[in-house]
Amino acid sequence: MPGAVYAYNAFGKLIGATQVQELGTIESPIGLTSTLSVWKVADALAAHVLALPGNETVGSVNVLVGETNDGRLNDIRGRHAGEAAVREAIASASDGPVAEGAVGAGTGTVCFGWKGGIGTASRRVGEHTVGVLVQSNFGGSLTIAGVPVHERMKPGAASGKPGGGSCMIVVATDAPLDARNLERLAKRAIAGMARTGASFSNGSGDYAIAFSAAPPLRVPHEGSAPAAPAAVLGNDAMGPYFVAAADATEEAIVNSLLRATTVTSRFGSAEAIPIEALKRALAPQERRK
Amino acid sequence: MPGAVYAYNAFGKLIGATQVQELGTIESPIGLTSTLSVWKVADALAAHVLALPGNETVGSVNVLVGETNDGRLNDIRGRHAGEAAVREAIASASDGPVAEGAVGAGTGTVCFGWKGGIGTASRRVGEHTVGVLVQSNFGGSLTIAGVPVHERMKPGAASGKPGGGSCMIVVATDAPLDARNLERLAKRAIAGMARTGASFSNGSGDYAIAFSAAPPLRVPHEGSAPAAPAAVLGNDAMGPYFVAAADATEEAIVNSLLRATTVTSRFGSAEAIPIEALKRALAPQERRK
Amino acid sequence: MPGAVYAYNAFGKLIGATQVQELGTIESPIGLTSTLSVWKVADALAAHVLALPGNETVGSVNVLVGETNDGRLNDIRGRHAGEAAVREAIASASDGPVAEGAVGAGTGTVCFGWKGGIGTASRRVGEHTVGVLVQSNFGGSLTIAGVPVHERMKPGAASGKPGGGSCMIVVATDAPLDARNLERLAKRAIAGMARTGASFSNGSGDYAIAFSAAPPLRVPHEGSAPAAPAAVLGNDAMGPYFVAAADATEEAIVNSLLRATTVTSRFGSAEAIPIEALKRALAPQERRK
Amino acid sequence: MPGAVYAYNAFGKLIGATQVQELGTIESPIGLTSTLSVWKVADALAAHVLALPGNETVGSVNVLVGETNDGRLNDIRGRHAGEAAVREAIASASDGPVAEGAVGAGTGTVCFGWKGGIGTASRRVGEHTVGVLVQSNFGGSLTIAGVPVHERMKPGAASGKPGGGSCMIVVATDAPLDARNLERLAKRAIAGMARTGASFSNGSGDYAIAFSAAPPLRVPHEGSAPAAPAAVLGNDAMGPYFVAAADATEEAIVNSLLRATTVTSRFGSAEAIPIEALKRALAPQERRK
Repeated sequence: MPGAVYAYNAFGKLIGATQVQELGTIESPIGLTSTLSVWKVADALAAHVLALPGNETVGSVNVLVGETNDGRLNDIRGRHAGEAAVREAIASASDGPVAEGAVGAGTGTVCFGWKGGIGTASRRVGEHTVGVLVQSNFGGSLTIAGVPVHERMKPGAASGKPGGGSCMIVVATDAPLDARNLERLAKRAIAGMARTGASFSNGSGDYAIAFSAAPPLRVPHEGSAPAAPAAVLGNDAMGPYFVAAADATEEAIVNSLLRATTVTSRFGSAEAIPIEALKRALAPQERRK
Repeated sequence: MPGAVYAYNAFGKLIGATQVQELGTIESPIGLTSTLSVWKVADALAAHVLALPGNETVGSVNVLVGETNDGRLNDIRGRHAGEAAVREAIASASDGPVAEGAVGAGTGTVCFGWKGGIGTASRRVGEHTVGVLVQSNFGGSLTIAGVPVHERMKPGAASGKPGGGSCMIVVATDAPLDARNLERLAKRAIAGMARTGASFSNGSGDYAIAFSAAPPLRVPHEGSAPAAPAAVLGNDAMGPYFVAAADATEEAIVNSLLRATTVTSRFGSAEAIPIEALKRALAPQERRK
Repeated sequence: MPGAVYAYNAFGKLIGATQVQELGTIESPIGLTSTLSVWKVADALAAHVLALPGNETVGSVNVLVGETNDGRLNDIRGRHAGEAAVREAIASASDGPVAEGAVGAGTGTVCFGWKGGIGTASRRVGEHTVGVLVQSNFGGSLTIAGVPVHERMKPGAASGKPGGGSCMIVVATDAPLDARNLERLAKRAIAGMARTGASFSNGSGDYAIAFSAAPPLRVPHEGSAPAAPAAVLGNDAMGPYFVAAADATEEAIVNSLLRATTVTSRFGSAEAIPIEALKRALAPQERRK
Repeated sequence: MPGAVYAYNAFGKLIGATQVQELGTIESPIGLTSTLSVWKVADALAAHVLALPGNETVGSVNVLVGETNDGRLNDIRGRHAGEAAVREAIASASDGPVAEGAVGAGTGTVCFGWKGGIGTASRRVGEHTVGVLVQSNFGGSLTIAGVPVHERMKPGAASGKPGGGSCMIVVATDAPLDARNLERLAKRAIAGMARTGASFSNGSGDYAIAFSAAPPLRVPHEGSAPAAPAAVLGNDAMGPYFVAAADATEEAIVNSLLRATTVTSRFGSAEAIPIEALKRALAPQERRK
């Protein structure tokens, strides 16, 4: 599919990024995992693609796998995610609502000192949808709908330093966009992340991937047939999509917090943000204090 | 000086950008002007540099000139800024507080539907300062300190569409940073801009320039002597500078609104944001409504 | 038109480059001139575009103007090219063979120590053409069709150092390419330049511009109508176009030498490469020595 | 170490590239392997680094692993290179001459239709050295020292299409260069590759990595201590290094052919270029025909 990658701060290992930037296409499922498992997952994902019917003689594939560092809760050096995890993820993939919170690559992540994880949100633009999925694992000054939550609620002492971490963002749309405007769309996800109070520290690996699932734009992996898009949207049409990508990213990050559950491991603990206390923090009367 | 340019959305004409990106140095005063005057101002700025004592035989110079489109209030097609404006600007340049609001290249700009213009702010990081100057001319949903001001105050009907426009941002620091980390610093200015509610539309030319005025880093224009920086800050030291650049940019944009005065021309009018009404909008009791 | 810019070594001032990279379109005639006249020429070109019928209310235009440094033969600091030169260039523009050698922006350039200038060449790829125009002004070890000419022929003593300089390259095609593949096409021009023996020194501003004149791809400057290309060529079709761009660039640079005439000014002289001596240098029997 | 990556044509999977571009540092041995083994090799290389004394608590590492596609001779889909190959490669690494030809990641590569592989060459610039290692696996019109060898010698019919393939290039220097100028140095390797007649087709993954081994520039992986380079070379000093990188790359590619031996597998065969015939092709009397 037409796709793009934007690296706002590339302290992170987005396997396959450079080929996507060159060719403007994504040719595998996108994997998200723990930092030090990124190569095993990429290898397993490649094996999966190569084993698909019709790919018996394919001699190359570019898989796209992102990661965030879950070393505070996970045995990251054990590199446990690999072939089995990939097989299970693909087998259980389905249409419909996406599991959120402390699931998958989000099981061990921490965001603004609270338990983070997978979050999603979407916006409609005319007849199209812009959907965003995040793997939140970063720090800063948590701000929700403009309220400085970080001034009113603090995660427990065991939650460690709030400044580091990373965020992987995937922006999916059925709007017919080419790779150049998909890259521009991916850039707007960073604006949404900024509004949550992200500190974008040196060690934060903040990448956004964007792709278009519009039918006429699907690009064959090989063969000399030119792509013949029916109607790629032009630059001038992008404004509402840009706003949608930013807004959906902001909400997806908040959702990753709201849907997360407290996770405790032998390495430590990350507390889910307490919803009732958060409601009070967001209420107008609280704002006055 | 060591310098960098970051183009978040390059729908704009930042003269001299590519050479700064290649060589990592800025070798002229930075000019800011109206879109269609950008070439005249660049020519005049080059003439100024070439006429400086010691430059009698210099055969090349790269000037850096940014612009935003002030066509709503200004006779933009008249291309009035040029040699006289540059001469006057350089003659009146001084240390100390910077004029803000509807001055210079900010005279005709509009921001969130209100009168925008030049704004500045700075932050301290240890013994260093990160200062930001903006030329604000963009739209979106004005948000100040997290409060959705755009829901409570509307600019007058004559103010036109709020979605377009651009922002030029200059980040100056006396921290000893090399060009690579200056580019990363410039990127963080966009995060600050995002927090003000910028919509980053297709037509918004959003660039950030960053430079370091730290003494040991000044780079000679010609000659084979290697630069010998005493102590360039490493990646790991950048976190607080990144936060400072984002925060100062956010505040500088707000200041560009607060310091602006209503401007009326034969082309239209842009109203300064009414300060007292804004205070009420930001007060806690207003937030409850 | 769909267009792209590739900066191999951006020690040079390609006015308008960043907006072309962002939007993937070129919206003005491309200007080529002397380094310090680049801003005057850009201003005059903008004035020309703004004055065209139908543009009476247009409030922005991005002009694309490249330059090389002709300070060895030209009064470069005089910044003589401007409104008159642009008016004359546009008035005399025509279809058909392009003037080559010591003409236009090539009047004062020097290439491999010999008189350089404007050169053109083209290749056919199926039903399409890839045409290249260069403004040659660089140094290195002149190599023609693989023969190390620089070992057999030396320009006169007055010709100065051969290592510096720049090359502006314009690649035009009627193949239906989008901006992403036009950028990749532009990159291949550098490969052709490399084969001539270019040294690509620090001070060499080596840029390639590429655009597609295929009818269905013409992009409106404003308006929300999506571009609807009939059949953009895909990545897999690019191979022969890439070879064509490299080959035509190599030949265009050689042609810029072969068509140049000796130029003498009050600043110095650059000798046209003597054709008969060059023929002998390229002949097999000469190669044996 | 300070390092950089330049992707001329990123149809290839250079694991770790984006983080090197962001941080300007290389923090692992560089791996080169077969396309579909790239993830296994990266995983094994990460395991190696994590197991080094002193790294017991390190929770992240960015490994840099390049690849070319050896599917014509190798069972590429078997993904045979992995932990054992990495362990053996690291155990046998040594100072001194580098094994060339059909070794390591070069065992199955094909270059200009002949057997390619690993090649090296170096140049002196003052007191510094610029060394280049290539993994040659690409096509085009073989040109050696300017002589169009491809017109005089043809590889056997079984050798397949000459146009595809890739080249991985590593440029190492002990000159004190920062990451920005290392990227510029890496770019010049492509100029050397161009002079060998590379066709730089769509499918060619052509990357250059560059790093500086100058002692004062070694960068700590973590910790807030600023890097304090004694004397980084400035832009103006780069010219001779640029020429050295291009020249050494050109020679290294030729050496990869000269040192290769014929390789036959159950998938096919690639013939080493016959040295005596090549000598005749390069001799002056041959050139006359």
